[in-house]
Formats: sequence, structure tokens, C-alpha cells
Amino acid sequence: MFTRTLAALSLAAALAAPFNLNAKTVVDSERASFTIETVADGLKNPWGLAFLPDDTMLVSEREGNLRLVSPDGQVWPPLQGLPEIYAKGQGGLLDVAIDPDYANNGRIYFSYSEPGEDDSTNSTAVASARIQDDKLVDVTRIFSQQPKVKSNAHFGSRLVFANDGTLFVTLGERYSQKDDAQTLDNHHGKVVRINTDGSVPADNPFVDTKGALPEIWSYGHRNMQGAAIHPQTGVLWSGEHGAQGGDEINLDRAAKNYGWPVITYGEDYGGGEIGEGFKKAGMETPVYYWLPSLATAGLTFYTGEQFPDWQGDLFVASLKAQTLSRLDIEGERVLHEERLLKDELGKRLRHVVQGPDGYLYLLTDESNGAIVRLVPAD
Amino acid sequence: MFTRTLAALSLAAALAAPFNLNAKTVVDSERASFTIETVADGLKNPWGLAFLPDDTMLVSEREGNLRLVSPDGQVWPPLQGLPEIYAKGQGGLLDVAIDPDYANNGRIYFSYSEPGEDDSTNSTAVASARIQDDKLVDVTRIFSQQPKVKSNAHFGSRLVFANDGTLFVTLGERYSQKDDAQTLDNHHGKVVRINTDGSVPADNPFVDTKGALPEIWSYGHRNMQGAAIHPQTGVLWSGEHGAQGGDEINLDRAAKNYGWPVITYGEDYGGGEIGEGFKKAGMETPVYYWLPSLATAGLTFYTGEQFPDWQGDLFVASLKAQTLSRLDIEGERVLHEERLLKDELGKRLRHVVQGPDGYLYLLTDESNGAIVRLVPAD
Repeated sequence: MFTRTLAALSLAAALAAPFNLNAKTVVDSERASFTIETVADGLKNPWGLAFLPDDTMLVSEREGNLRLVSPDGQVWPPLQGLPEIYAKGQGGLLDVAIDPDYANNGRIYFSYSEPGEDDSTNSTAVASARIQDDKLVDVTRIFSQQPKVKSNAHFGSRLVFANDGTLFVTLGERYSQKDDAQTLDNHHGKVVRINTDGSVPADNPFVDTKGALPEIWSYGHRNMQGAAIHPQTGVLWSGEHGAQGGDEINLDRAAKNYGWPVITYGEDYGGGEIGEGFKKAGMETPVYYWLPSLATAGLTFYTGEQFPDWQGDLFVASLKAQTLSRLDIEGERVLHEERLLKDELGKRLRHVVQGPDGYLYLLTDESNGAIVRLVPAD
Repeated sequence: MFTRTLAALSLAAALAAPFNLNAKTVVDSERASFTIETVADGLKNPWGLAFLPDDTMLVSEREGNLRLVSPDGQVWPPLQGLPEIYAKGQGGLLDVAIDPDYANNGRIYFSYSEPGEDDSTNSTAVASARIQDDKLVDVTRIFSQQPKVKSNAHFGSRLVFANDGTLFVTLGERYSQKDDAQTLDNHHGKVVRINTDGSVPADNPFVDTKGALPEIWSYGHRNMQGAAIHPQTGVLWSGEHGAQGGDEINLDRAAKNYGWPVITYGEDYGGGEIGEGFKKAGMETPVYYWLPSLATAGLTFYTGEQFPDWQGDLFVASLKAQTLSRLDIEGERVLHEERLLKDELGKRLRHVVQGPDGYLYLLTDESNGAIVRLVPAD
């Protein structure tokens, strides 16, 4: 059923919403017919989305607000108690995640751009907290990307729990520090794997490597804004923005080098070559790539019952291309890509998440951003 | 160098050619810049192309002519001595191939639609022969698809030599006989593997299976107009036309069932469902598929020196979509597709072949068809 309940604070923005999906246009796609429903709008550049056990949504706005949104779409005022956030350029409050044991410990996690001591530098950090009424309590920073640098770009980040309960954090190379992605003495252009208290898992791949930061899981990445665990294999699949061309999906395995900036399928902004080509011994090729770039952001594997013919497919949200790519996956191969929503929605998409109801939820990246969902047509 | 020497018999048609590529438009694609050169035209629906050791081209025209074309583009009169050919609908003279030991035995191979005794039925056959002056001699039919049926469609076929010297022949399911593709008592919708004298290799997968035709290599195919051996692995990669949607590239292995018409990514003409969906235990999924269909025809792996950044890529010619797809292959995965030539050439493409000079040669499927080639831009 179509529901659209607006919280008071978002009403004005909602009235000015440039798209009206009440007409319930049915999108007939390759494997499913669906309608696009607006769950909530008036959200300023929403970035991360996670569902609490009671189906309440936890949503981050990049400028630095963390909000609860009721299942019926009511947007609540920002939760109080966030740490200081550097909200400029691509920085701000980024991803959110719920502890797998939330029912017992009530913990949530969020990533954000953390200012340095003199505010001229910054990096991506991760904190955990509990929600108590309208505020965060027990806020604990569990990770801070090293080193902090002067940059407004390429913060990453997605937070994804592995099946063993460890937490993957995807981290950008800060744009200005791209060569750092190839060395292990820093967290630029890395996936890190940590315990939820911030400690380092004993089986991390570089814990015994001299000079390597022990949180590192994989390296040679650029700016990673998508990550998901494969529902059958448990393998991390990550997505990253390429330069001018070369957005990648990678099978993100321990200790592997994904090549940036030595190998890439893209080219430099303006057209120059980057690095040494697109293949090199000792460096991983992606499982799939886009050229030209879509500007891929969040991604998720679909496992729900609402769209039986989408089960096992990987959905990838994209910003510039304003599309939702459906990748038909067989084992570790992409057999086919279908691009959805460009014509019917036409919005920059920051993230895609499967809801507990089996619908696909999307975040539109706009100053009047929305949570929309795809619902099977009758 | 651009050469365009016209044989007398094709001059009139050439003058009416609707495209003029003398302007040498440079196509800047993802991995190469090239120009499109017309090697020869005035060919009626050319279908198969192979190079003799002296770089002369052997070209089939579907209506039933087999011609030599000089490296400089001179089109010679049809070779005499072909067997009777059923040239209606999709039938006619189809693919051509050169014996791997041609230097010693001078043998060529061709596939064609062979009429039945009363001309109301037909099937695909393969013959070998030698070229002596302007005619074929020692013409020997080495294979005949069983049974013959009344149909003008889905003859296949491509002829590809495996590294062990056996010959793969791809065979359509004749459109009217699609259920035959699932049983082994016929050659409809099959790849067969034969010796060049027509005998059955002792290690064919079904030689000991009661009721199975011993030539069968794989089954469950629809209409296969593309096939190539992977240059490193020696594995057969085959391409087939799907129904309305669902053109496939398959890793074509012994004894495997590729699912038609039980599973398919396409739907019936007009929109009805076919079969039971798109996955089923015991049936192979493709390595890549297109939806909607491009109408994929010939394919080849590029291994030449002219386009270093295309090495290892799989090129797929398509009819309806008038494009040349470049598939970036890593192992047995397709990482990326680039579509070439739709805007710059805009012709139905029946086949793509790597020339001995390392250029890519294409056949345009028109009544005034051409051999064109892609040549690196200066």
C-alpha cells in the first residue's frame, strides 16, 4: 500500500518536491514489474540507511544529521550527541550500520569525516553509540583513518558486517594521496577490518607484516562507496569510483592489491593516462567495470521474497548516471547488466538497501532528498 | 594503406554503395583508435570468411556462391562445383573454414543448407573440398544434420577447429523443432564434433550413450551463429541467438546442456514465457547474455599485434543491433562490454574474423554486402 506520511519538519520541502510518484507508474523491467513509492522526503543529501529491528530506519544526512524515520515515513528531528563532523565537499556524516547483536546491545555504528586538531586536516572515522530517546549515548570512536590530510574528497565509506561479526570499513584515498593506496603504512585507499570495539582481529592479513597498519584488509583502492557481503559465499564485494571512467566492482579478498593508481580502466580527468595500463601481475582485476563511469555508490545483494527473480542479483546505485544497475550474478561472474530508473526516477542515487519487508529502498542524493522504495506491481 | 580494388563483376554495385569510408573517419574507442576500410564490396549477404595462407580470402555468399577475394580486394567469380544448396529464408551457403594442415592437404570446409530428397525438407551439412583453379574438386560431404525437416530457419552454423584438429560444427534447432534440443537422438540445437573425414572422434562424450547420436558435443542450444576457440585455454566459446531477448555466449563444454528451450533469458516472440525460467539444476547458464537481443552472429578472440589493448578480448558481430561488441575477458569472466561501429558504420554484421595482418575483418549482411576492416589510426 502506498503510504506517505510527512513529518512536520519536512512538510515545506515535501510540497516543493519536484517529482510526484503518486500516479503509481508501473515500471516493467526485465525480471520484475514494480512501482516507485516515496517513503519520506525532505532529507538533505541522505547517505546511509539501516533498519532497526522494529523496522524504523536510521538515516544519515551528509551535512551531519542522524535521524530516525518511522516505517510510515515520519522523519524525526536529528538525534543529538554526534561527535564533531567535518561537513565540507564530499565530507560529512556518511554510512550507518546496526550491530548484528543489536537486540542485546543496542549498538549502532556510523562513519564520518573527522576534523584534525587544527581543522585544516581531516580523515574518515567510525564511531559506535546507543540511541536513548532523542540522543546518542555511549558514543565511542572505534576507528580513525591515518593519517589525516588536507582534502575535501574521497572519504569512502561503507560499513559492512562480515559473517564472523567483524566490521569492514571502506576508505577512500583522499584524492590528493593516491600513491598512498599502494603502501601499507597508511589507511588511504584501503578496506580495513576491525572488531566492533575497535580492536584488530588476530587473523587480519597484515598483523605480522612489519610497517603495515594491522587494520588493513585490502589495498590499492580509490574511492569506495559501496560494499556488501555475498549472501551465499560470505565474500566481500566492494564498489569504487574510478577516475574518468573505470568504476569497479571487486571481489575484495584479504591482502589483495586492487591496483589503484598503478592499473585502472579509467583515465585522468581531462584525458591523460594514469599509471601503467589496466593489468599487472600481482594486482587484481575487477569482476566488472564501467567505462564511462556511472559514479557508482552503494550496493546490495537482493535476497528477498518480494522480487523472486531478483534473488542473488547485485544492485548498484549510481550518482552521475542516475540509475540503479541490476547485475545478474552467477557464482563470481556478472552475466548481464540491466539499468533501471533513469527514465522513471532520474535522480542521483547514493545508496540501495533491502528492507525487512523485501522491498528495495533507495536514497536520492539531493538537498531535498528522499527515501524511495520499489514495490512489486499488483 | 587504404586499398579498394574492384573486380569487374562488382563494379556496378560498388558505385551504388551507400556508404563512403574513403574519408577515413577515425573512431576513438575505449582501447584503440582506428579507421574503417572497405576491402571489397558487391558481395551478396556474405556469411563466412577465412584466410588462405597467401592471405587470399575465401568468402561465402548466402545465396550459394563461394568466392576468392584477393588481399587487394579483387572479387573473383564464384568457384564452380558446389553441391546443391537450399538457399531460402535463413538457408544457403553458410560458414567456411581452412584445414589447419592446408599447406599440405589444400582442404577447405563449408557448411550449407542441404535439401532433402523431395526438396520439402532440409538440414545443415558440411563438406570439404580442394580449390583447383576456378572450381572445387574432391567435394566430399562429411556431415549431414539429422533429421531433415521442413523449415527455412535456424540452420546455425559455424565451423571451428579445436586445437586437437577435430572440427566443431554449431547447429540450430530449426525453429520448428525446439524441443529436439533437449534430446540426444537428433542434431537439432547441438554442437557436434567430428574428424575432418566425417568420422566420430573416439573421445566424444556420448559415443557410449545408447540412443545418442555420437557426433554430439553439447546440447540444449537454439540458433548458434558464433563460435571461437579461446586462444589460451582451448575451450570452445559459442554464441547463439535467443528468442525475443536472451542472446547468449556460452563456455561450450563436452556433454553439457545449455538449457534451450527449458531455460532462457529471453521470452517468446510477442511476449509469452518460454520454458521454466532462467536457471535449472543440470543446465548451464551462459557466461554473458544480452537482453534485449542484439542478434549476435560471428565471434572471434583477438590475438593480434595491431591492437595491443584488444588482445584477449572477444569480439561479437551483431545483425539487428548493427554493432560490434568488444567483451573484455578475464579468465572465464566478462568484465565489461563496449559497443562499436553502430554510429560509424551502421550495418548488419554477420561475422568478425582476425586477418593474418592483425586487422579485424567484418562482413556486412546486405544484398550489396562488404568486407570491411578495422585498421589502427596513424
